[in-house]
Amino acid sequence: MAKKVLKFGGTSVGSIERIQHAANIIKKESEKGHKIIVIVSAMAGKTNELVAQSELISNNFNKREMDVLLTSGEQVTSALLAGALNQIGTKSKSWMNWQIPILTEGDHKNSRIINMSTSKINDYLKDGGVAIIPGFQGVSSTGEVTSIGRGGSDATAVAVAKIFESDSCEIYTDVDGVFSTDPNKVPVAKKIDKISYEEMLELSSLGAKVMQPSAVQTAMMYDIPLQVRSTFTERKGTEIFNQENIDYSKSVTGVAYSKDDSKITLIGVEDKPGVAADIFEPLGQNQINVDMVIQNISSDGKKTDLTFTVKRDDLEKALTILRNNTKIKFQELNKNDKVSKISIVGAGMVTTPGVTYKMFRALADDKINILAISTSEIKLSVIINEKDTIKAVKKLHTVFDLD
Amino acid sequence: MAKKVLKFGGTSVGSIERIQHAANIIKKESEKGHKIIVIVSAMAGKTNELVAQSELISNNFNKREMDVLLTSGEQVTSALLAGALNQIGTKSKSWMNWQIPILTEGDHKNSRIINMSTSKINDYLKDGGVAIIPGFQGVSSTGEVTSIGRGGSDATAVAVAKIFESDSCEIYTDVDGVFSTDPNKVPVAKKIDKISYEEMLELSSLGAKVMQPSAVQTAMMYDIPLQVRSTFTERKGTEIFNQENIDYSKSVTGVAYSKDDSKITLIGVEDKPGVAADIFEPLGQNQINVDMVIQNISSDGKKTDLTFTVKRDDLEKALTILRNNTKIKFQELNKNDKVSKISIVGAGMVTTPGVTYKMFRALADDKINILAISTSEIKLSVIINEKDTIKAVKKLHTVFDLD
Repeated sequence: MAKKVLKFGGTSVGSIERIQHAANIIKKESEKGHKIIVIVSAMAGKTNELVAQSELISNNFNKREMDVLLTSGEQVTSALLAGALNQIGTKSKSWMNWQIPILTEGDHKNSRIINMSTSKINDYLKDGGVAIIPGFQGVSSTGEVTSIGRGGSDATAVAVAKIFESDSCEIYTDVDGVFSTDPNKVPVAKKIDKISYEEMLELSSLGAKVMQPSAVQTAMMYDIPLQVRSTFTERKGTEIFNQENIDYSKSVTGVAYSKDDSKITLIGVEDKPGVAADIFEPLGQNQINVDMVIQNISSDGKKTDLTFTVKRDDLEKALTILRNNTKIKFQELNKNDKVSKISIVGAGMVTTPGVTYKMFRALADDKINILAISTSEIKLSVIINEKDTIKAVKKLHTVFDLD
Repeated sequence: MAKKVLKFGGTSVGSIERIQHAANIIKKESEKGHKIIVIVSAMAGKTNELVAQSELISNNFNKREMDVLLTSGEQVTSALLAGALNQIGTKSKSWMNWQIPILTEGDHKNSRIINMSTSKINDYLKDGGVAIIPGFQGVSSTGEVTSIGRGGSDATAVAVAKIFESDSCEIYTDVDGVFSTDPNKVPVAKKIDKISYEEMLELSSLGAKVMQPSAVQTAMMYDIPLQVRSTFTERKGTEIFNQENIDYSKSVTGVAYSKDDSKITLIGVEDKPGVAADIFEPLGQNQINVDMVIQNISSDGKKTDLTFTVKRDDLEKALTILRNNTKIKFQELNKNDKVSKISIVGAGMVTTPGVTYKMFRALADDKINILAISTSEIKLSVIINEKDTIKAVKKLHTVFDLD
């Protein structure tokens, strides 16, 4: 008998039929004798609908009230799911953020779960009840309703798994698991059975979109094994856990890509301490997220070139800031908004010689030009022309034996 | 400077535009220097939508979870209205049932407000803030979410007015006030400027539908003056208060009717103590609400006839119960499901001779047959054939100088 946290995402509870389907999955787990805590998202589309209503009132809607507004979404799902479970004979009860309570700290719309009371829910689990907890929300120490950011139900699930010391945390979603690349674009993409937290983080932040990165980070920090699986099939999903427990017969686990990047190159920047800070500080202050940064050692020790990428939507704003800031000195400014980023990810890469070479050769063979390169221990990213994106992804997927 | 409770019903907050309109009304009142507490209903249609979702799961949806589900509706309105007020520069904050808290007793779906903490909200009012409170809900002493029945936002408004010792309680709705009869059916119907609690109760429970009867009862009990007025016009509404303060130049205030009644007559019932109890107890136990009851004195002291009305939906169930219950003895059972009830209401009736005669004569003049009669101090109801309903209402409206 284990204690399990099951989390159902928005599409998994997107209709009454789906809520009933989720209830059946939960009933089966409960009948195996497991103690079950369920975390739910708002029904698919609900949060967007509420946000759209708030935007009719203001583009800068009061943050406190936004949290009160949006947290109603998971409240509705919790009640419907608890009702559906009771209807099929499984004892169940919804617990609102303030009833537990789920204690958070930090600002409205962006708080973090710091603690939860466990005694009442543990008593309920002992009595054979299934506890339903709304994701994404909590209460502050001053008794205000708070939310932990969009997609925060994953973070709630991991926090609950940690605080309740559960044996597993299963993320039920609308895909079969984590794939070696986007299965919609590359049909030979394969579901990954086992992956490390680190690889998952690289994949999710690069566009795999299966789980919220900060939730994976928390799971990694507290070593909570995760399972991502489909609500709609019986198939085994992807297990995400500690790197040490994974067999790395393959050097590369997956190929990720993102297409909404643009590249900025500053040519002839002074090569002295503080220059990078001068460049990136005003961008950060203007909410522009800088992704890859590549700076070569300057040949003459005086001038260097600096290349970095920003989201395409931020490009014009970034260029304006760079041009108008008198502290930033450069000889030339180049931009390219038709680029994409391709990354190969794998915890085994670091121990496998030749991965880098193999990637560059594979792209060169297909005449795909590499505009910039960035590496980390478990990731190798290149910037290429956007038109080559899918061609490159398919090529790398084949070359690294993922088909 | 007064302390005011303003309540906005479902249609008054039925869209973002209407929420913004309500915000403007509140802003004006606040700028006059009044301390304002606002009670809101769920947006029009929202509660029905949630109920419909629950019914897809079960016709007997878990009551506790139903309360969790439905209370989300007023939460959404509260947040949107508080956001709209802040947007137009009026300091405002929503207070959830558990944040105040609004303490209730009684069953789920049918609880009563017994107390509220006032200090935090009073401090906030003193600071010039407008407090928004969701209607229809509360928390029990054990910390469960409760609701006080459909239409319960009126009850919340009256309870808040009482507990916060407010100077007035204004019910903003989609009609101009209380009318002398249904203005949709009788175009000459007139808005009543002043009406007593008792008359309002008779009118509202007979189908005038402007305010929830139990809320009017509470207002009467604590002598809280009410105002019913339209959210959509600047017109003065209807004031509802103590009978003593009303000028009764007119004997009859209004004509109410309901069309979903049916009449049952038991002929030849034994005339001895306990018979009525034997008849009505099983009906009550089966949730059948008996409305008018008429029993004549028996001529021979042995047998009598008993007539009563039930809602048309309950007729077949009631007949089955009456026929199958061996404790109930009668010679004959008659039913008529094509009847309606017409009532004239007026606190001045009791002091005005001839009202009864005038009513019967007026109906007789138009050849409208009276099937049963029932009277109270401020009400005179007759059961007639359904086809004559509007004809009778119009006739009585004219005869009693209400046109």
